[in-house]
Amino acid sequence: MIRMNNDYHRAAHPEVLKAIEETVMNDYPGYGDDEWCGRAADLIRSLTECSQAAVHFFPGATQANFVVISALLKSTQSIIAAQTGHINAHECASIENTGHKILALEQNNGKITAAQIEKEAAVYYESGEAEFLTEPKLVYISFTTEQGTLYSLQELKDISAVCRKYGMYLFVDGARLGYGLGSCMNDVSLKDFAELTDVFYIGGTKCGALFGEAVVLCNPAIQKRFKSVMKQNGAVLAKGWLLGVQFYALLKDGLYFRLAKQADEYAMQIRKSFEKKGYTFFSDSYSNQQFVIMTDKQAEAFAEKFIYEVDHRVDDTHVCVRFCTSWDTDEKETRELIHSIESI
Amino acid sequence: MIRMNNDYHRAAHPEVLKAIEETVMNDYPGYGDDEWCGRAADLIRSLTECSQAAVHFFPGATQANFVVISALLKSTQSIIAAQTGHINAHECASIENTGHKILALEQNNGKITAAQIEKEAAVYYESGEAEFLTEPKLVYISFTTEQGTLYSLQELKDISAVCRKYGMYLFVDGARLGYGLGSCMNDVSLKDFAELTDVFYIGGTKCGALFGEAVVLCNPAIQKRFKSVMKQNGAVLAKGWLLGVQFYALLKDGLYFRLAKQADEYAMQIRKSFEKKGYTFFSDSYSNQQFVIMTDKQAEAFAEKFIYEVDHRVDDTHVCVRFCTSWDTDEKETRELIHSIESI
Amino acid sequence: MIRMNNDYHRAAHPEVLKAIEETVMNDYPGYGDDEWCGRAADLIRSLTECSQAAVHFFPGATQANFVVISALLKSTQSIIAAQTGHINAHECASIENTGHKILALEQNNGKITAAQIEKEAAVYYESGEAEFLTEPKLVYISFTTEQGTLYSLQELKDISAVCRKYGMYLFVDGARLGYGLGSCMNDVSLKDFAELTDVFYIGGTKCGALFGEAVVLCNPAIQKRFKSVMKQNGAVLAKGWLLGVQFYALLKDGLYFRLAKQADEYAMQIRKSFEKKGYTFFSDSYSNQQFVIMTDKQAEAFAEKFIYEVDHRVDDTHVCVRFCTSWDTDEKETRELIHSIESI
Amino acid sequence: MIRMNNDYHRAAHPEVLKAIEETVMNDYPGYGDDEWCGRAADLIRSLTECSQAAVHFFPGATQANFVVISALLKSTQSIIAAQTGHINAHECASIENTGHKILALEQNNGKITAAQIEKEAAVYYESGEAEFLTEPKLVYISFTTEQGTLYSLQELKDISAVCRKYGMYLFVDGARLGYGLGSCMNDVSLKDFAELTDVFYIGGTKCGALFGEAVVLCNPAIQKRFKSVMKQNGAVLAKGWLLGVQFYALLKDGLYFRLAKQADEYAMQIRKSFEKKGYTFFSDSYSNQQFVIMTDKQAEAFAEKFIYEVDHRVDDTHVCVRFCTSWDTDEKETRELIHSIESI
Repeated sequence: MIRMNNDYHRAAHPEVLKAIEETVMNDYPGYGDDEWCGRAADLIRSLTECSQAAVHFFPGATQANFVVISALLKSTQSIIAAQTGHINAHECASIENTGHKILALEQNNGKITAAQIEKEAAVYYESGEAEFLTEPKLVYISFTTEQGTLYSLQELKDISAVCRKYGMYLFVDGARLGYGLGSCMNDVSLKDFAELTDVFYIGGTKCGALFGEAVVLCNPAIQKRFKSVMKQNGAVLAKGWLLGVQFYALLKDGLYFRLAKQADEYAMQIRKSFEKKGYTFFSDSYSNQQFVIMTDKQAEAFAEKFIYEVDHRVDDTHVCVRFCTSWDTDEKETRELIHSIESI
Repeated sequence: MIRMNNDYHRAAHPEVLKAIEETVMNDYPGYGDDEWCGRAADLIRSLTECSQAAVHFFPGATQANFVVISALLKSTQSIIAAQTGHINAHECASIENTGHKILALEQNNGKITAAQIEKEAAVYYESGEAEFLTEPKLVYISFTTEQGTLYSLQELKDISAVCRKYGMYLFVDGARLGYGLGSCMNDVSLKDFAELTDVFYIGGTKCGALFGEAVVLCNPAIQKRFKSVMKQNGAVLAKGWLLGVQFYALLKDGLYFRLAKQADEYAMQIRKSFEKKGYTFFSDSYSNQQFVIMTDKQAEAFAEKFIYEVDHRVDDTHVCVRFCTSWDTDEKETRELIHSIESI
Repeated sequence: MIRMNNDYHRAAHPEVLKAIEETVMNDYPGYGDDEWCGRAADLIRSLTECSQAAVHFFPGATQANFVVISALLKSTQSIIAAQTGHINAHECASIENTGHKILALEQNNGKITAAQIEKEAAVYYESGEAEFLTEPKLVYISFTTEQGTLYSLQELKDISAVCRKYGMYLFVDGARLGYGLGSCMNDVSLKDFAELTDVFYIGGTKCGALFGEAVVLCNPAIQKRFKSVMKQNGAVLAKGWLLGVQFYALLKDGLYFRLAKQADEYAMQIRKSFEKKGYTFFSDSYSNQQFVIMTDKQAEAFAEKFIYEVDHRVDDTHVCVRFCTSWDTDEKETRELIHSIESI
Repeated sequence: MIRMNNDYHRAAHPEVLKAIEETVMNDYPGYGDDEWCGRAADLIRSLTECSQAAVHFFPGATQANFVVISALLKSTQSIIAAQTGHINAHECASIENTGHKILALEQNNGKITAAQIEKEAAVYYESGEAEFLTEPKLVYISFTTEQGTLYSLQELKDISAVCRKYGMYLFVDGARLGYGLGSCMNDVSLKDFAELTDVFYIGGTKCGALFGEAVVLCNPAIQKRFKSVMKQNGAVLAKGWLLGVQFYALLKDGLYFRLAKQADEYAMQIRKSFEKKGYTFFSDSYSNQQFVIMTDKQAEAFAEKFIYEVDHRVDDTHVCVRFCTSWDTDEKETRELIHSIESI
């Protein structure tokens, strides 16, 4: 069976594991105050061309999402996000659990627009900041989205402009940032993220690391006592260097970007093969997640060789199925899937 | 420099790393629904002789502490703990952040007694359950304590009896459970913990694992939707098998217990050496943490070769210093310290 | 100017104020443990034919809403409500502030249906109770709704049946319960509410009292420590008897119901007058709130004599305006408005 | 029976009730946006000589306490208070319920000192602002305290200076502010409170009003969106003018101060009578609460004519009893108690 249901079903790239092993005989200070976290943070500041950024390493993405939001917002402030946003749909109300309302907007291809955000923000900001309304203070988007789609540089600039107009933070969930950066359709750089957002993260768990997310606080105004909020929520790993060492290994010579780009390319080959056979898609994804509409019979046929994820039922006879390439997907697996597509 | 400041300054025992490496080429289901977590949980149910236990693997101890407490308590319920308890003193109000008050009791040697607990509980339970008072509903103790001390089986039985009298949960923080079990003074078994508590955990991070704590919910009444509370707080690792595989490696043939016992023995050699030279101690610790009172000059002398932790200042000329052995401390390091003790 | 913008712009019915004055020279125990709260609670148990009910008096409705929900739900449980529900739209995220997600459903005439609720609940309950989803545990509806509409007895029975099927609580926000009960279209009794819901409240603030809401916990399983959650949230009035005495005065001989019924009748006269002149309405309201669509010019003309509330803008030239009768609206005011309707 | 157990067992001073009645036939805007709240706020700004103050009227003191604290603090910030402080001992963890830790200090006569506060604050501020520690950000004291004692102007100045040194807010719980101001030992003015604190409140419930507390936000930096936090917590009364009208009636010609002063004087007569008979006291109270140590037999004898509050048991044969005068205590009641003291 070939597992293509997600991008976190294998441990880590050999280079990452090797880097961890090489630290085994050394001693390190705890809680992220070590040389590896320092080096990895320096590297990220350099790659993002943002010397003022504070970089913190989280064990996981759910933590990164709610800790960032909880650290930035006061109790009467709310979040603007897509209805399908990960924080709204997949994390058991982790955000509401910290006391904040999500103002969920209709999505299109998993994305929301600057115009939608402006309209939602205006309800509050243009109406005298009514007491019974929450203050939208943070816009949350994902790159790539839950549906594998991308924001273009222009879209990001427009969203960033609305955020700055109203004094709202822009937060980009980058659990799959690598796959976004590596997409053939992408025109956004790490530097752009640093310039246009207040905070974003570089996802490791789904992109070659054993686990870990590198949260980049570009805006100096939100850096104070941030690590204390992490600590309070159990997001400071005792052996923090394990995170630093992984990000250093992934980023020091571009491995992170190569792995994701390769996975995106395999995904595009798979997409094209599906297209050629006349399949339609749930979203216009040019990254590692492909959402294919197929009959139940077709799904059954694929299930003989592949583990995929059923995203949702479309109608009585059709389902939407996610095929997901990962940093570890190889050419052979890709070919086998393409072979099956052609023959089913 | 020899690092004896804590028990989490090295990565993991080679057996643990090897076990992780061996999984690298395999695919696993995410979020702990994999064979390794299953095997490790079975092993723990067997070692604790508690077939009804639910076992969940956490990345870290701060998470384990606040997620367990948050999952078990309602908003008007509180926790009884020692003033020096980890949750009260070292986690930036992680418990209060989830909405609960800690009723902090005076400690003796880092411990609290059944009598103290009964007295505190009685304020509420024997007084008509007054509305303006919180309901003490969970007793939190650590094994070993922050000061390296142990609860005896009789002490645990007495505390458990008070808890059951009033319907309070008993929760044992086992971040250093191994070092407690391995102590020459210990008379408590894993089975005892399963019988006497509602929930406890077997700490991995400080005891040979890369990271991870195995939370054992012995009481079936508290198992429902527990994992959902974990998810909400970002405590479900995407690649959950990484935790299962580590605990399986540590527990399958007793490595966990041997490592801790050895560390305890080294610590006792160190303690005896300090004793012989007339040093006094902050606590009666028979486990891997030793809190030694010394002059500033002595501390300075030790600092030439050893990294230790200054626990607190005793007076103008004395400090209390923690020397901590770990699963990775070896005979040579121990001898060097003993040699220094004898010669300083 | 005649104020018809809401139903809480005057203090209280003279009978209520008289009842308060008559207590002035007496001493009472504090925090609701007095004879007046006792008598009012008994009366409510009798009127609802629910001898097992616990009755608690709250100063205000926002408190009643969030305290009830917070007392009933655990951290991973959520609320099903209409998108326009008061708790979702008008209380600055008071519910999310206590840590809970609202699953907001599309409304029709301000209402949600049993079928919609079943569908939303099934996402969780019929899908294996997935960990990343919240558990819908409470259904919140209002009687009357934000748009002045009513649930029929059959609709309530259907909703109640779905709730019981899945073990969800049914909570009826009764800030305007009187106006619902008094409507010419109503077929629901207080006894029905006690039988079909787990908790509901009888609103005083908008219905003749100076302030206060009587929360009726019909389900014995939710009564324990409820008052403690009230206390924790500042919802236990020190001089609790002030609330008891008001509800006793309003309910002892049916004043509460007469006042609301009268207001409803005036509202229907106003509605009919608008209808006759060809106005259309935002909702099918047969209670004290009437939402009328009119041109900006008409709105301006009414504004010369009447204070109303602009509910929302319909288009460039039309607004939706709320005219609200109250327990204190009299015939003369009603006639003046009708006169204006006819002449504008 | 003469009720001297507390200062909130009677409704309100006749002048206050009269003022409410006089508003009955008028219409008012809701939620505190009315002329009475405006006038009362102006009056308070004038009495405190603090033109920049924002004044908000709360229904009750528990709400005032937790809403102020919740509005001012972030999740990793904590409160310094006396162990016996109302928020720590009497409100069912209302503060922890909003996510904040209370750093409780030993009290002396119900008070804490600038030196104690400085020492506690220094643990965090002088130690590098460690991540695992909360940031003490607000000092909470009561005037008068739970034991009826007062802070002198010098003590307040010293506490205020420590707060400003570390950037901590000073918050004075003024539920019994009137009785403090009216004490024969008092040397603090309303103006002093406005100058030395960031926020304090003028308690109405215990001092002549039906209910209500006037929160004075002296520090402009904490005024923004404060009312929104009130709204979120159900602390904005729909008929807000009821609070404004009461405070205007109490403050416009000094009634508030006269009532409290009179109650204090009666309390001092009672204290002197107890002193003359050789009773000892639990605290050095010169305000309306007197805590008298007596034998069980004496307590029983007083219980024949007086309702008092048993504060706590002293030993097997003695109790500490609170006699409390109030704005409504009259000479006759005072004389009867003194007569009993002399004859028991």
